[in-house]
Amino acid sequence: MNYKTLQEEAFEANREIPLRGLAIYTWGNVSAFDAGAGAFAIKPSGVPYDALTPETMVIVDLDGKVVKGTMRPSSDTETHRMLYRAFGGIAGVAHTHSPYACGWAQAARPVPVFGTTHADYTQQEIPCTPFISQEALRNDYELETGRLIVDHFHTKKINPLHCPMVLVAGHGPFTWGKNAAESLYHSAVLEEACKMALFTLQLKPDCPPLPAHIIEKHWERKHGDAAYYGQNA
Amino acid sequence: MNYKTLQEEAFEANREIPLRGLAIYTWGNVSAFDAGAGAFAIKPSGVPYDALTPETMVIVDLDGKVVKGTMRPSSDTETHRMLYRAFGGIAGVAHTHSPYACGWAQAARPVPVFGTTHADYTQQEIPCTPFISQEALRNDYELETGRLIVDHFHTKKINPLHCPMVLVAGHGPFTWGKNAAESLYHSAVLEEACKMALFTLQLKPDCPPLPAHIIEKHWERKHGDAAYYGQNA
Amino acid sequence: MNYKTLQEEAFEANREIPLRGLAIYTWGNVSAFDAGAGAFAIKPSGVPYDALTPETMVIVDLDGKVVKGTMRPSSDTETHRMLYRAFGGIAGVAHTHSPYACGWAQAARPVPVFGTTHADYTQQEIPCTPFISQEALRNDYELETGRLIVDHFHTKKINPLHCPMVLVAGHGPFTWGKNAAESLYHSAVLEEACKMALFTLQLKPDCPPLPAHIIEKHWERKHGDAAYYGQNA
Amino acid sequence: MNYKTLQEEAFEANREIPLRGLAIYTWGNVSAFDAGAGAFAIKPSGVPYDALTPETMVIVDLDGKVVKGTMRPSSDTETHRMLYRAFGGIAGVAHTHSPYACGWAQAARPVPVFGTTHADYTQQEIPCTPFISQEALRNDYELETGRLIVDHFHTKKINPLHCPMVLVAGHGPFTWGKNAAESLYHSAVLEEACKMALFTLQLKPDCPPLPAHIIEKHWERKHGDAAYYGQNA
Repeated sequence: MNYKTLQEEAFEANREIPLRGLAIYTWGNVSAFDAGAGAFAIKPSGVPYDALTPETMVIVDLDGKVVKGTMRPSSDTETHRMLYRAFGGIAGVAHTHSPYACGWAQAARPVPVFGTTHADYTQQEIPCTPFISQEALRNDYELETGRLIVDHFHTKKINPLHCPMVLVAGHGPFTWGKNAAESLYHSAVLEEACKMALFTLQLKPDCPPLPAHIIEKHWERKHGDAAYYGQNA
Repeated sequence: MNYKTLQEEAFEANREIPLRGLAIYTWGNVSAFDAGAGAFAIKPSGVPYDALTPETMVIVDLDGKVVKGTMRPSSDTETHRMLYRAFGGIAGVAHTHSPYACGWAQAARPVPVFGTTHADYTQQEIPCTPFISQEALRNDYELETGRLIVDHFHTKKINPLHCPMVLVAGHGPFTWGKNAAESLYHSAVLEEACKMALFTLQLKPDCPPLPAHIIEKHWERKHGDAAYYGQNA
Repeated sequence: MNYKTLQEEAFEANREIPLRGLAIYTWGNVSAFDAGAGAFAIKPSGVPYDALTPETMVIVDLDGKVVKGTMRPSSDTETHRMLYRAFGGIAGVAHTHSPYACGWAQAARPVPVFGTTHADYTQQEIPCTPFISQEALRNDYELETGRLIVDHFHTKKINPLHCPMVLVAGHGPFTWGKNAAESLYHSAVLEEACKMALFTLQLKPDCPPLPAHIIEKHWERKHGDAAYYGQNA
Repeated sequence: MNYKTLQEEAFEANREIPLRGLAIYTWGNVSAFDAGAGAFAIKPSGVPYDALTPETMVIVDLDGKVVKGTMRPSSDTETHRMLYRAFGGIAGVAHTHSPYACGWAQAARPVPVFGTTHADYTQQEIPCTPFISQEALRNDYELETGRLIVDHFHTKKINPLHCPMVLVAGHGPFTWGKNAAESLYHSAVLEEACKMALFTLQLKPDCPPLPAHIIEKHWERKHGDAAYYGQNA
């Protein structure tokens, strides 16, 4: 296993972060996971997007050991690792500092399902974790950020495959998917949903969520057993 | 009839969706209708804009049958079809998830005529349908979305040729025109009008609509019998 | 006099409208005036910016007669003409539908001087005219729009050379300058000032204007007798 | 000493201002300081960014004397000079009129630490100076603007190396860094933090600051003795 495909996949998704306006400078990172190999490729820490090459992507295994690469991996690596360990079936994780999503995260508010744009991707409000505790932070900040997400999904009984996105209070979004590209796709979806939801509240501060039958329908037509969106549904 | 011109027209208008910032990924679709042929060309479902070619546009007739094309047409095809059947004189329909229009649709608020930018295109507030009922949704969601629009225009006594745009509550905008290009043009107009109207309400929450004589004048100078805007008026 | 230079100047300024994001489609127009010739070059009505050439610019004299060009001039021509007749010393006029300026115009609010960005261009709040009356509108809408601006400046005792911008209530901005390029420059300045002022009110709804000594200083350092901004001051 | 490197450095940072959307026209300036030479290179006053070359950068010494260059330096030169004199350890200063930062400056509000995006760069709220007094302004406006910043940091006991950014009330942002590029980088960071903070207040008007342990952690992981962000930490 030489991880070249995984590095290529992570590279492509990381390059897309600034192109989609989801982070400036080095404020976001994507990883690509190979469950069989038990390892993932992730952006090196603090390196600008236009200086990346596939070879600079660092390979980290599920124990957190760097198994390939000469650079230090993203400072958020432990959060990615925690998500891969806990959320079976995902093979990509993305983290950005997109401004609308960060606005909601800083306000520590989950994003209600106000419209079908949101419901096309999850029937849940987009959850927002509590603020990380002082104890957890002192223990291992990035790992515990991952645990905070995992615990929040567990407590709220949210299936991560049915809600591929979360806001970490006071910080920003993490999203995931069946591969690196999809995890980044979900970052862009989340930013757009956060933008629309802010506009909605500005127009109707007490706006109720979308009626349940519409939420369910939009999820089902894209992701249900009888999905009919796209060419392969 | 080989529909090549119709496919070309639909292709061009669909490609313009992301260029004008009206939808990301695959979140919008335009169709081009030929009344003589009783059929329209529409975007294939779930295909990214930069993967489209004229040949990928699917031809659907007024009974909803695919008469040309190998791909599955847009999941919103039945909404387009319903509009072509009900609104005589239109030959293009566009649907996007542009963020300001979706903000208003999610708040389920019609957009008042606050200025001449809006009045240049319609003298009406931009209507917002009710939320689709559970019954309608179970029957045939996309077709019933079209019917919801048509019924709303009927109930409100709005002439669709005098108001080429609508918001579907909790979902987003649909617009139409005398061809595919004009339908998309109206999507861009609507987004701009929704943006300006939000800013207006932020500056004056109880803002009254534009005086009636100004609304009428702007409509008349562009669309009335004595229109004098443009080179062909 | 063949007006080639004037047409070239108007052409360049009109092309800049969409590049600076001040209007989509055909929603803005700039003219270039030659006081000696008593005529101005203006955008043809309803023609998209990328279809313009210098030759398409229409030459109109101060009596409103087309003296060169085969196309119909902008529907706003009479407003431009009125401004050239009334405001001595200006040689360029621009009109756009930029979204923040239109938001303020639709709210019919003058823009207070909240900061030095604004004070660098005028010591006045940016005035907003009343809504045009039904009588004026019926008489000659575009000419009377010009008169509305001129009368408002007269009533408010505002020197148009010291405040090269105005909002027409329910419509949008008109700006002017010593040539076409400067008139458009002022449209961009106005949009930026309107954006900042909206943000300011969102952060401090009862924000007082900038202290008078700062307003005066910023105007003076750019435009006063002892101006020291730029290379030619 | 021919200052070529310094001019090149200042040139590159100034060119980045419009590319990052931090100012239109000539509304921003960056300088590059050489402590050994006791001089800095700064943008010439009123010159558009695309007309700049390294040679147009003006060299000014710590006494305010132009020691190289034929053009007049930025009108804000004295503010830059004051900051270099007072803030030991900085070698770049940037000033822009970015819209969100100006919105906060015009509202004369310091920007609370609402999130980690902000805390990654400073543990402080971003300070906002008082409005400059009439006396100070009459004495020497730009120099006194620098003094206003320096005095505010002194009064508030803020270490400028731990908070490389400030808002000048009614005006806009000044930022600094270990070189010109970093000073501009901080302008972009500040704009993004101001944007997110506005969205946060729109979602939660009484939002408390981020818990202190998270603020401290984010600062420490990037700038503390045991920093582990980036490749050289």
